[in-house]
Amino acid sequence: MERVKPRTLTGFMELLPNEQIEFEKFIAVLRDNYIKYGFYPLDTPVLESAQVLLAKGGGETEKQIYRFKKGDTDLAMRFDLTVPLAKYVALNYNELNFPFKRYQIGKVYRGERAQKGRYREFYQADIDIIGDGELSIIHDAEIPAIISDIFTGLGIHDFKIRMNNRKLLSGFFELLGFSDKAEDILRSIDKLEKIGADKVTAELAEYGVSPEDAGKILDFVATEGSIEEKLAAAEKYAQKSALYDKGLAELKEVVKYADAFGVSRENYTLDFSIARGLDYYTGTVYETQITSHPEFGSVCSGGRYDNLAGFYTDRDLPGVGISIGATRLFTVLKENGFFDFEKTSPIDALIIPMTENIGYCINIMNKLRNAGVKVQTYFEDKKLKKKMTYANRINVPYAVIIGDNEIAENKLALKNLETGEQIICTAEEAAKIINA
Amino acid sequence: MERVKPRTLTGFMELLPNEQIEFEKFIAVLRDNYIKYGFYPLDTPVLESAQVLLAKGGGETEKQIYRFKKGDTDLAMRFDLTVPLAKYVALNYNELNFPFKRYQIGKVYRGERAQKGRYREFYQADIDIIGDGELSIIHDAEIPAIISDIFTGLGIHDFKIRMNNRKLLSGFFELLGFSDKAEDILRSIDKLEKIGADKVTAELAEYGVSPEDAGKILDFVATEGSIEEKLAAAEKYAQKSALYDKGLAELKEVVKYADAFGVSRENYTLDFSIARGLDYYTGTVYETQITSHPEFGSVCSGGRYDNLAGFYTDRDLPGVGISIGATRLFTVLKENGFFDFEKTSPIDALIIPMTENIGYCINIMNKLRNAGVKVQTYFEDKKLKKKMTYANRINVPYAVIIGDNEIAENKLALKNLETGEQIICTAEEAAKIINA
Repeated sequence: MERVKPRTLTGFMELLPNEQIEFEKFIAVLRDNYIKYGFYPLDTPVLESAQVLLAKGGGETEKQIYRFKKGDTDLAMRFDLTVPLAKYVALNYNELNFPFKRYQIGKVYRGERAQKGRYREFYQADIDIIGDGELSIIHDAEIPAIISDIFTGLGIHDFKIRMNNRKLLSGFFELLGFSDKAEDILRSIDKLEKIGADKVTAELAEYGVSPEDAGKILDFVATEGSIEEKLAAAEKYAQKSALYDKGLAELKEVVKYADAFGVSRENYTLDFSIARGLDYYTGTVYETQITSHPEFGSVCSGGRYDNLAGFYTDRDLPGVGISIGATRLFTVLKENGFFDFEKTSPIDALIIPMTENIGYCINIMNKLRNAGVKVQTYFEDKKLKKKMTYANRINVPYAVIIGDNEIAENKLALKNLETGEQIICTAEEAAKIINA
Repeated sequence: MERVKPRTLTGFMELLPNEQIEFEKFIAVLRDNYIKYGFYPLDTPVLESAQVLLAKGGGETEKQIYRFKKGDTDLAMRFDLTVPLAKYVALNYNELNFPFKRYQIGKVYRGERAQKGRYREFYQADIDIIGDGELSIIHDAEIPAIISDIFTGLGIHDFKIRMNNRKLLSGFFELLGFSDKAEDILRSIDKLEKIGADKVTAELAEYGVSPEDAGKILDFVATEGSIEEKLAAAEKYAQKSALYDKGLAELKEVVKYADAFGVSRENYTLDFSIARGLDYYTGTVYETQITSHPEFGSVCSGGRYDNLAGFYTDRDLPGVGISIGATRLFTVLKENGFFDFEKTSPIDALIIPMTENIGYCINIMNKLRNAGVKVQTYFEDKKLKKKMTYANRINVPYAVIIGDNEIAENKLALKNLETGEQIICTAEEAAKIINA
């Protein structure tokens, strides 16, 4: 038979079994929190009509898209979960109840050049709350509560949610007289961390921003202190731009209610430098850093937008949402030793028959399973040493060893594989110990 | 702005929110049972190298595949979960422990002609147990136990697992002297239900099978009675073909241990007519019918095979597995009124503020969430009637109504939206009632 060398494409995550168990647990934390907060699940196709998926068109994204024809149909694989949501809401508007809260955890596709940390297939885990014509600002304050619960649930406690408001930023440029240059300035500010203040000042000069005004902008976005101190600093520019004042009022509301939601001040702050791209977000914006690992960048980002589905419908659909790049976050956590794969097992106990009486072993397995124990039996006809090697290699915490002596007593030998301790007991007793 | 009409491609399931909740529950039953039986999760890419994915090549499947180039790379979307498993096991052989038990629940793609009940993107939910060189027959007997637990878990009790053994069938043709025609005969027998006994006899005649022998074959595959009666009928042909005898011995083992696993005789039987295709299965084969809906066909099928990954490796990797076409099964259940979408809600309770004191409402929501209640608040500034309409449309069982009177007492009004009954109580009391 002619053989093909098995391989998995570069940029496509494929985990080993133990890693996959931890990934499933990781995803479950996200999903369970989204459900707890009342989000509907959603599952849209991976493949869509290219015309529909690329309605917005243009830009860098389009080059990366997996797009192809099957017969006459021009198809594309989804590159995010936002465009499919927009399509879904526009398509099913009459069936939905607003505010419509949905989560979606699914794979998206970007044919990027392969490089470390870049995936061509990766999971995104998104939530969005969509209003019909309007959407209360209080939803914006619930978002950091959800982020907090998720990171705490993952066992990550040193995270910081940084929030800003796009109206505040744009309003600030407006009150300096640069309302027509707001996008250019934002694009420069977005690069601040990467290229530094001097280069940003030079770039701003190209747009006609004087060094003095550039200084004001850089000072503003670098405002430090407690949340109250930052709000007080922002107050100094009030009543010069309606947009700025609206942004500041929104930010105050978000802070007030985030506190009400119980989000710890340890875990959130304001950061006037955050813009999150150019043309989508219009109000609150979020980034989330893991404090001990700033090199991860933002691991959970999002914001408020005015119009989800303008390319599909003339209805006004404002929303607020966040996205977690789940594949990327899992990978950086894994690379930093966050998971202990040596303790990961698919089961709680492995039954090792030392008898011909397999029926008895199955009977014990049935009892353990009914008591909620994840258990399997090593049915292969091998020497004890080989069976124990298997038990050790799958990291199972308990072996249930059954020989004819145990059968005669209607019992089993329960061996704790970490301590080596072994006791003789009934299936019911074993289930209690294993579940404890 | 130029608008694109939103649409979803034909053959791609996209559910309404309530339907999606039920689909998630449905998938959770499958997943939880697979986990209970000790299977590792696995998640392989949707996109693979076409050369790798189509190593086996040929046939009807290849025409249906979504295959395209991105740059120089020849890509294909997976059309089942078996080929990716074969690739995975061959690729990671040294990292795996055998028997290797894995489940995978994921979307697969087939560009079939669109017709009712045919999907181009659909979920399969597979389990396989892979041995290294050999695999105990007892695993074959555990499969019906898993199927039973799944259907019982779904609330479907009138299902019947029908089992056969391919060696028994091929051996039967051999002992009649047709070992060189076994495949042709099998292909005809496979069509028995569709075309009837007369046409099968006519087809068999073309292969040189006399009407008398055709009668024997048709009688054999139609063997009726209890499991013991069928095994006794099969015993009559013993000791004429080693292959037949091996098949019969395996089938007896599977029956013996299926009984030990506690699979009810109500839910499984033998059926000597089942072949499950031609060139893959080599031992036990399974089909599962829902008795009250024979028109669904087999909703869970699979079997024992000798060699999982012959196209990728020279290692002998026998296995046994089953596949549930989850999208199809969910759809036929849905169409037959199996789910009550009118009672499906993303939350247990909706908080309806009748006060300006939103902070109090959020505080109540925090308490309910901490007590495990899935709850959200209707934050929009609308009339009570509109808020109650929202509550009714999302089918939430309880409304938590909070006005200034309730706040003064540090309480809330809990309204059962099914009975209309309303009581005043604390958050703790409400959590108890809602969780009950």
